[in-house]
Amino acid sequence: MSKPLILITNDDGITAKGIKSLTKAMEGLGELIIVAPDSPQSGKGHAITISDPLRIREENVYGVKAYSCSGTPVDCVKIAIYHLLKRKPDLLVSGINHGSNASTNVIYSGTMSAAVEGAIENIPSVGFSLLDYDADADFDASIHYAREISKQLLAMKNPDHVCLNVNIPKGKLNDLKGLKVCRQGKASWEDTFDVRKDQFGRDYFWLTGEFKDQEQAEDTDMYALANGYVSVVPTQFDLTAYDELKTYKEIEKI
Amino acid sequence: MSKPLILITNDDGITAKGIKSLTKAMEGLGELIIVAPDSPQSGKGHAITISDPLRIREENVYGVKAYSCSGTPVDCVKIAIYHLLKRKPDLLVSGINHGSNASTNVIYSGTMSAAVEGAIENIPSVGFSLLDYDADADFDASIHYAREISKQLLAMKNPDHVCLNVNIPKGKLNDLKGLKVCRQGKASWEDTFDVRKDQFGRDYFWLTGEFKDQEQAEDTDMYALANGYVSVVPTQFDLTAYDELKTYKEIEKI
Repeated sequence: MSKPLILITNDDGITAKGIKSLTKAMEGLGELIIVAPDSPQSGKGHAITISDPLRIREENVYGVKAYSCSGTPVDCVKIAIYHLLKRKPDLLVSGINHGSNASTNVIYSGTMSAAVEGAIENIPSVGFSLLDYDADADFDASIHYAREISKQLLAMKNPDHVCLNVNIPKGKLNDLKGLKVCRQGKASWEDTFDVRKDQFGRDYFWLTGEFKDQEQAEDTDMYALANGYVSVVPTQFDLTAYDELKTYKEIEKI
Repeated sequence: MSKPLILITNDDGITAKGIKSLTKAMEGLGELIIVAPDSPQSGKGHAITISDPLRIREENVYGVKAYSCSGTPVDCVKIAIYHLLKRKPDLLVSGINHGSNASTNVIYSGTMSAAVEGAIENIPSVGFSLLDYDADADFDASIHYAREISKQLLAMKNPDHVCLNVNIPKGKLNDLKGLKVCRQGKASWEDTFDVRKDQFGRDYFWLTGEFKDQEQAEDTDMYALANGYVSVVPTQFDLTAYDELKTYKEIEKI
């Protein structure tokens, strides 16, 4: 049997400490290949590049076969699967992101969108995020969990078209309380635009804001993280609001 | 009572025929304001701009208060709600997109991501897409349905945090069979990368591909559209794979 093929990507770019840590976490688990953005792509969600061409470049990083790509995280997954790789990966790992992708952040996140693209392709996929935005964050506990979860995914029968959203609290391995499988909590950004003047006196705007819980339920990722657990949310991409199919039935009369 | 405030956006950019058509469809339904990208933003998904500042410019188009924004469709919604508008819109309409956003396309779509952002903000929101990529497409039937659906949404009690994904087949109003409320069909892109050489002999890559059904079920948007109906999918943003919470329970033992 050939070794499992593991595709590694992220959204912070191929030189980020997070992807270096993730590559370390995968050591010995299979044949590794990195295809990651050549520049930071945070907040790129599920964006793909359709009006511009893409470039890829072979990179010599981390002692692993690696390519940087001029596109988004989802572009990286697409060009890996449909152009660079000879066979479908057995596992796709994305991250380790510098910062939380819990709750509603999943849909803004390039890290998680890469994992969701893996799920669309029916590849067992997982996005890892550490709740620390620092470029030099301590990834030791994250490396442990990324490795153990990946081993488990390689060993188990994965459900079709589902990936995992794993978020890891800041802290040493011993400080963390373990893993909790949970649902995506309800929370959202209360945005603020910081208005500044450029050298010509014209306004420009920086998006900033505060992420706010809208519930305090114990089965959510927000709750798990606030209580020292690593959160694991099984994640899919059918956005149908099934409970509301009936509500809108009257629209059919138009 | 003051007139309903209707926020109009899209992903094809403020000069696209689709947003002009949507503005026409909203005539007389309320106070209209357009906040739309200053350039085409197709395939931008739920991307937001966090590492660059945004610019906005007042525009004199379509006889309606209008701003173009240098960011993505989701940026447009955010800057409208948190900076430009004095009160929360009563309705957010996005489109009319040039091309389908049915099935899995919902997550790649800037048009629908704007509507989803509206749903996050708990604003009744809807994305309209016409199954015709032509810049000069015939939007007459789409205008009819966009207007009638918007009237209905303004009149009804909308469920919290849900928006609509409306796709309209090509054709004259009389050729269409009406509306079907349905679920998001299972389908995905089989991508191809067109490899070309630049003037220096280096490869560059264009993303292309074919969208393929993975099921033929009658309750899907793909089926409705293939059979001449306008598809209406109630859409939400909780990506939790609820059916698989148990499957992954063993991961908690790590």
